[in-house]
This record gives sequence, structure tokens and C-alpha cells, in this order.
Amino acid sequence: MELWYTEKQTQNYGITAKIKESLHTETTEFQEMAVIDTIEFGKMLVLDGCVMTTDRDEYVYHEMISHIALSAHKNPKNVLIVGGGDGGVIREVLKHDTVEKVVLAEIDGRVIDISRVHFPQIAAGLDDPRVDIQVSDGIKHVQDHPDTYDLIVVDSTDPIGPAVGLFAKDFYQSIARALKPDGIFVAQTESPFFNGELITRVQGDVASIFPITKLYLASIPTYPSGLWSFTIGSKVYDPTVIADPARTNGLTTKYYTPALQTSAFALPRFVEELVVRS
Amino acid sequence: MELWYTEKQTQNYGITAKIKESLHTETTEFQEMAVIDTIEFGKMLVLDGCVMTTDRDEYVYHEMISHIALSAHKNPKNVLIVGGGDGGVIREVLKHDTVEKVVLAEIDGRVIDISRVHFPQIAAGLDDPRVDIQVSDGIKHVQDHPDTYDLIVVDSTDPIGPAVGLFAKDFYQSIARALKPDGIFVAQTESPFFNGELITRVQGDVASIFPITKLYLASIPTYPSGLWSFTIGSKVYDPTVIADPARTNGLTTKYYTPALQTSAFALPRFVEELVVRS
Repeated sequence: MELWYTEKQTQNYGITAKIKESLHTETTEFQEMAVIDTIEFGKMLVLDGCVMTTDRDEYVYHEMISHIALSAHKNPKNVLIVGGGDGGVIREVLKHDTVEKVVLAEIDGRVIDISRVHFPQIAAGLDDPRVDIQVSDGIKHVQDHPDTYDLIVVDSTDPIGPAVGLFAKDFYQSIARALKPDGIFVAQTESPFFNGELITRVQGDVASIFPITKLYLASIPTYPSGLWSFTIGSKVYDPTVIADPARTNGLTTKYYTPALQTSAFALPRFVEELVVRS
Repeated sequence: MELWYTEKQTQNYGITAKIKESLHTETTEFQEMAVIDTIEFGKMLVLDGCVMTTDRDEYVYHEMISHIALSAHKNPKNVLIVGGGDGGVIREVLKHDTVEKVVLAEIDGRVIDISRVHFPQIAAGLDDPRVDIQVSDGIKHVQDHPDTYDLIVVDSTDPIGPAVGLFAKDFYQSIARALKPDGIFVAQTESPFFNGELITRVQGDVASIFPITKLYLASIPTYPSGLWSFTIGSKVYDPTVIADPARTNGLTTKYYTPALQTSAFALPRFVEELVVRS
């Protein structure tokens, strides 16, 4: 018997992967969660029917949401990750030896539990002594911690279900308050091919709050269209410039390179137009 | 009834698209050819079971295989396209007003016929007076035309069936002879995620023939992994530099921008390693 997992990434288009077995399915307090073992991409974490991460290509997302903002900051010590229960962002953030404390505010503790079991390489950083895991609402956490963080990473699911509030202008305002005077934030903001309106709206909202707002891109095979966007809001630092070359050049990565710190911001024409419109 | 088209891009992974109707299927002298009308990507041209181009994302491939090499050349007049029967590369090449003659050497005349019928926007340039359509073997054409072309574009299918010879070192040697002393050539060279060994091999072969060999990338949603590579071999010109900014800045495009002339060559670490290994 051949089993294939198909994710409809839009109503009329998707990816399909042959699976060895379904390892776990569960309805948590917040979402449908599944872990499947595929031949091509290894294990996949699936939340509400969307592939969140896979063994084979997880490094792209986790490196690219982390190292651009961290490399732009002169001395990032205190980092907040909203979402990110699989631990992949923590693993990357901890590669910067300036980092003294990482708070993870993940609303769904079951994502953390299951990632520890099925994605040990991704979850590797969860037990680091610098990490403070809080199973809590990131929106409330941000509201309750003014002037606290050097970097806030919004590692959210798609803007449906529990993550809707993580794409709202109110939330970006709270983030700005939770950041120190030279703070920086980064969020995953979906596919330019399929979610152009969202990108335009978020760019506009962030630009109304942060003096420096930029979009950059990375290629993630298992995400819709394979092209993914990240939005940065920064109070002081230019995210296209590496603040401490010695620190950044020393990173061990599979996707990020110092050259991408600038070139990832060189947008295809149709993506430029999404940003200009905002 | 819902009809879905599924392309297995590897043995164990693929894309799937809901279709309105199948418009055409045919076994030509060289390959299986189909045209299907999908809801998400419009019409798709499918050769030997692989999506070649779609209404919605065709501009990425056609612009990016054309404008990088053309913009690197100071005065490209004579251009050869090997393959490319859909006409998309011709349309882009003709945007450069230096171009006096474009020869299309497409082995399968049925691709040209069907593209004229079902992809009129892509095939738009086929009837331009500067275009010389030759239904012929590109390998033989290249062998028979020494010192003739400023630019040769290898717009091939995947390295199976009729296109195998278009990925061979012999062919690259013939291309070098068919180019003028400052000539440049570009070829599509598959996905870094799925075809790393091919990229390494081709980079090595081209680098043994051309003084300047480089790889660059573009994001094509309907191609395997969404990330696609192109290999350039150049006798004189640095492909990361725009030779005539006035000409290149005047291009009307949806993907290519002058900034991409350099940033498209900034490779993710794992792709850099494919090239270094060569």
C-alpha cells in the first residue's frame, strides 16, 4: 500500500509526499497536530493541515528567521521568541555568543512536548540553561514586558487559528514597546506568490511603527510556492548591514551566509511592488 | 467531479493542481506533450510528465534565463536559443534593442505549434522579423556554426530523453566554439535541493572550458523545490556586472531587477558547497 500525504497549500494547489508512516496525531487545546515520516523530507510537523517544518529543509527557515536580525544587532543579549515551540529558532539564536537569555513564549505546550520526542535535532536548544520556556500567550507576554528585549522573533503559524493576533498592528505596537531603544523584530510573513496582500498590509503596519522596515526572502521547498518572506522592524540598526563581522562570520550554517545579509533583501520586481504599495 | 494533476517531481514527492480541463495530449516524435488548464497557475505545458511552464509563473524562468547574460554582454547582437520552443526566451531576448537576430533551434516542432495555440502570450515573439525558427537539433546547429553567436541560451527540458546531450561536456565545448571571442552562454541546471550532483558536475565541466563560470538562482513555484539554478559560462564578461546600465534599467520585467544581477549569485551555503566541490 502506498500512502501519500497531500497538503492543499491553496484551495487548488498543493504538495504531496509519500509517507513511511504517520507517527502521531492529536487535537491539542489550540490546533490539530500531526507528525508524519516521509521518504523525501524525513519527519514533518503538521499543524492545522500545514507543514511547519521537516527534517530535511528546516534549517532554511530557522537560520533565516534568526541570523539576519541577530547579525544586524550590535550586542543582542535578551531574545524573545513568540511561538517556535519546535525549538529550531532557539538552536540558531544560541549560536550567537552575545545571547544571555532566550525566552520562548509558546501558547501550545504540546508542540514543545512532541518536538522533543520526534524532532530532537530541531529541539536541541530547548534545554540550554540560557533558555526560559514559558507556555503562555506571546501577545500577553509582550504587553507585560516593556523595554526588555534586544530581539523579538515572531515564529508563528499561518494567520489562521491561534496565530491571527500575531499578524495584527496592535501586536506590532506592543512589540515596539517590549523592545529596548535599539531593538529589532522579525516575523515570518508568508509567500509573495500566494499572500501578497498580507505582505503589503504587514509592511504598512510595521512601517507606521518602526523607523526601519524591510522585507527579505528565503527558499523553503516545503512551504507554499517555495519562496518565503520575512518582515523586519528595526529602531536603529540597518538589517542589511552586519554589526559584528567576527561574530557573524563564525556562524556554522547550511543556508545563511554573510553575503545573504544584503542580497536576501534584493527583491524580485513583483515583490518590490508589494512593498512599495504598502 | 474534481480532477487533479499530480507531478511526481521526485519518486516520492510532487505538486498537485486542480484542473479545469485537459486541453491537449500528444505523443510527438520526441516526447509526451500535454496542455492542462489549472485553476491556480492557468495553463501548464507538460513534457514527459514535467511542468515546463505555466501562465502564472512563466515570467520568472524566461526573464531570469535571459536578462542576466544579456545584461552582462556589452553589445549582444546574435543570439542562439537551444530548445525554448514555447517562445518565452525569445520574448525576453527581444527586449534588448541591441539584438539583431535570434535563432531558435528547437528539436520538436510540435512544441512550437502547440505553444502558438495555447500560450499566445509566451509565444508572442516567435513571429518577430528578427527571429529565425529552425526545427533542428541544437547540438548539430552549434557544431555547424563556429564563431557566430554573442549569446547562447540552453533552454532545455530535464536531463532525460531528448535533452540528455544538452548537459554533456562535449556540448559545452561546441558552444564555446560557436561563441564569438567575447561570447557568453547560459543554461538551466535544475534544483540545488534535488539535483546537487548534476550542478556540481556541470559547473566543473563548464569551468574547464570557460574562464568565467558562475551559478545563480531564481524562485519558480512550479519547479521542483521552487528554487532553480542557472549556469553561466563566459569568455570575457563578468556576469554579475551590468555592461550597459541604460539598456538594462529600461527593461520591463516582473521578476528581474538590476539589483538581482549581483544578488542572484549570492548562494545559500549548501549551494555554494555544490559549486566549490566542482
